[in-house]
Amino acid sequence: MIHQQYFLGIDGGGTKCKARLESLNGELLGEGLSGPANPAQSADIALNSIIDAAAQAVAAANLPAETISTLHVCLGLAGVNIPAYRDLAEAWQLPFANTLLTTDLHVACAGAHGGQEGAIMITGTGSSAFACVNDVHTMMGGHGFPLGDKASGAWLGWRALSSTLEAMDGLSDTTPLTDAVCEQLHASSAEDIVAQALHYRSADYAALAPVVVGQARQNEALATAIIQEGAAYLTMVLQRLSDLKPQRLTMIGGLASYWSAHLPDHIQRKLSPALCSPEYGAVALARQAFKEA
Amino acid sequence: MIHQQYFLGIDGGGTKCKARLESLNGELLGEGLSGPANPAQSADIALNSIIDAAAQAVAAANLPAETISTLHVCLGLAGVNIPAYRDLAEAWQLPFANTLLTTDLHVACAGAHGGQEGAIMITGTGSSAFACVNDVHTMMGGHGFPLGDKASGAWLGWRALSSTLEAMDGLSDTTPLTDAVCEQLHASSAEDIVAQALHYRSADYAALAPVVVGQARQNEALATAIIQEGAAYLTMVLQRLSDLKPQRLTMIGGLASYWSAHLPDHIQRKLSPALCSPEYGAVALARQAFKEA
Repeated sequence: MIHQQYFLGIDGGGTKCKARLESLNGELLGEGLSGPANPAQSADIALNSIIDAAAQAVAAANLPAETISTLHVCLGLAGVNIPAYRDLAEAWQLPFANTLLTTDLHVACAGAHGGQEGAIMITGTGSSAFACVNDVHTMMGGHGFPLGDKASGAWLGWRALSSTLEAMDGLSDTTPLTDAVCEQLHASSAEDIVAQALHYRSADYAALAPVVVGQARQNEALATAIIQEGAAYLTMVLQRLSDLKPQRLTMIGGLASYWSAHLPDHIQRKLSPALCSPEYGAVALARQAFKEA
Repeated sequence: MIHQQYFLGIDGGGTKCKARLESLNGELLGEGLSGPANPAQSADIALNSIIDAAAQAVAAANLPAETISTLHVCLGLAGVNIPAYRDLAEAWQLPFANTLLTTDLHVACAGAHGGQEGAIMITGTGSSAFACVNDVHTMMGGHGFPLGDKASGAWLGWRALSSTLEAMDGLSDTTPLTDAVCEQLHASSAEDIVAQALHYRSADYAALAPVVVGQARQNEALATAIIQEGAAYLTMVLQRLSDLKPQRLTMIGGLASYWSAHLPDHIQRKLSPALCSPEYGAVALARQAFKEA
C-alpha cells in the first residue's frame, strides 16, 4: 500500500465548525460540519466540535475512523488571537498526526486568496480585518460588539434600534427608518422594543440590518447617514490594509457586496474577488506546514 | 391597644433592595437591605429580596414578625415598566395588607421631591429620566446599555474603551485618554483589552468612567469631546422634562453633580437639589395610596 498523506482544514467560529479533507494532490475527499468552536466561549465544546467535524470528513471520505490519527491539520479558530485562549487550545490532546493552530481570520484570508498571502475585510454579523504580508499578521477590529464590529450587521441593527428608541422618547423625530424598525418588531412603544431587546445578542441586532439597507436603498436620510458612517469606517480600515501592500485585498462576509458598492472608487479599484472558502484556506496552510518534501 | 398603621417603602433594583418602615406619623421605625429585586432578571429572586428586606425592617423596628401582614406597602421595582414583567410582579402572593406596585423611577422621583410630583434625570451606572406631572408618568431613556443609557457611567467607559481599541488598531492616534485606559487595565495590546472586556457588563464599563472624567478635568481633547456629547444629550432630555412643567426638576445618581456642572446655565438654573431617598419616596406613595381617612 502506497503511503498516503491527508490534509484537513478546520474553520471554527462561534456558531459552527467546518472541516475539509483533501488528498496529497488536492482532491476533495470529504467535508464535516459541527457546532461552536470558539475556545473563548467554551474550550470543551470547541474541542468536541473540532473532533466531530474531522471525524465526519473522514467518514464522508469512506476512510477508516483511525485515519484521523494520520491527518495533517490546520485549525483556524475564533478567539485564539487572545493569548489565554490560544494557551487553552495549545494544551489540547488532539488525535491528529500534526496540528497547526491559527486564527479563523488567517484561514479565511488564505482561502480568499487561494492559499496565498493577502488581506481581507470581513463584514457579516461582526466585522474584522486581517492581513498576512511576508508572514507578518496584522489584525484590526474584530473586538466584538458593542466594543467594536463597526459596519457589521450587528452595528447596523443596533444603530437603527438605538435611533428608534430616541425617537420614541421624543428626543428626535420619527423617520421612515424608525417606523420600519417598529413595524419589523411589531412594536408601538419603547417598552415593546426594550422587552424584546433585553437579552439581544449580536445576531439579533444583525437581523435588523436588512431594514437599514432597505431604507438606505430608498434614500431615507437616517439610514443613509448610518450607511455613510459605516462606509467611512471601512474606507479607513481598507486604506490601512492597502498601506501594508498585500498581494490582494478582498472583502468577504454576508455584507461584503453591499458595502463594496458604497466605497469610494479608489478603494473599489483595489478590491479583488474572493477565490475559495476559509476551510480551503486551512487545508492550504496545513499543506504548507506539513507537506513532506 | 391603639390601632396602629405602618407604611413600608421598597426601592428594588438590579443589585439591591432597600426597605424603609415608618409609623403613621412619619417616624422611621426600621430599615432593611437585601439582594437583587428586578423581576426582568429573576422574578423569584426579586420576590425573595422584597420579603427579606421587609422582614428586616420589621425586625429592626422591634415589631413581631407577623406585623408584616398589616403593612401598607409601595414596591418601586426596576423592570416593571415592561408589561410582561409587571404582569409577573402583579401575580405575586405578597404577605402585606396592601401593595401598590410601581417603578423604581417613580419612587426615586417621589423621594427626590419629598413625596411630591416632579421630574428626575438619573445618571449613575445607567441613565434614565422620569416625570410625574398631574399624575401622568413620562419615561425617557433607561433602555439599558448598549441600546440606551447615554451619558451613563457605562456609556462613558464604553466610549473610552472603544476609542482605545480604534487607536490600538492604528485607525486613530493614541491620546492621553487611550493611554490612561491602557494603564488602568494594565493592557499593552488590543488583545489584552478584548481578553478582559469579553464578558463586560454595564458596571465593568462604568468602572472606567472616572478615567474619562479625570482626563476631561485636564482638558484632554478626546475625553472633553465625549463629555460634551454626553452633556448635549442630557441637555436635550432635561429640556424635554422641563417642557412637561414639573414642579421641580432634579438630577440624581452617582454622576449627577459632575454632569450638572457641565450643563448650560439655562438648564442649571432649572435644577433643584434632591430632598430624600427613593425608599422615602416609596413610603410617601404608600401613604398617599393607603392612609385611612
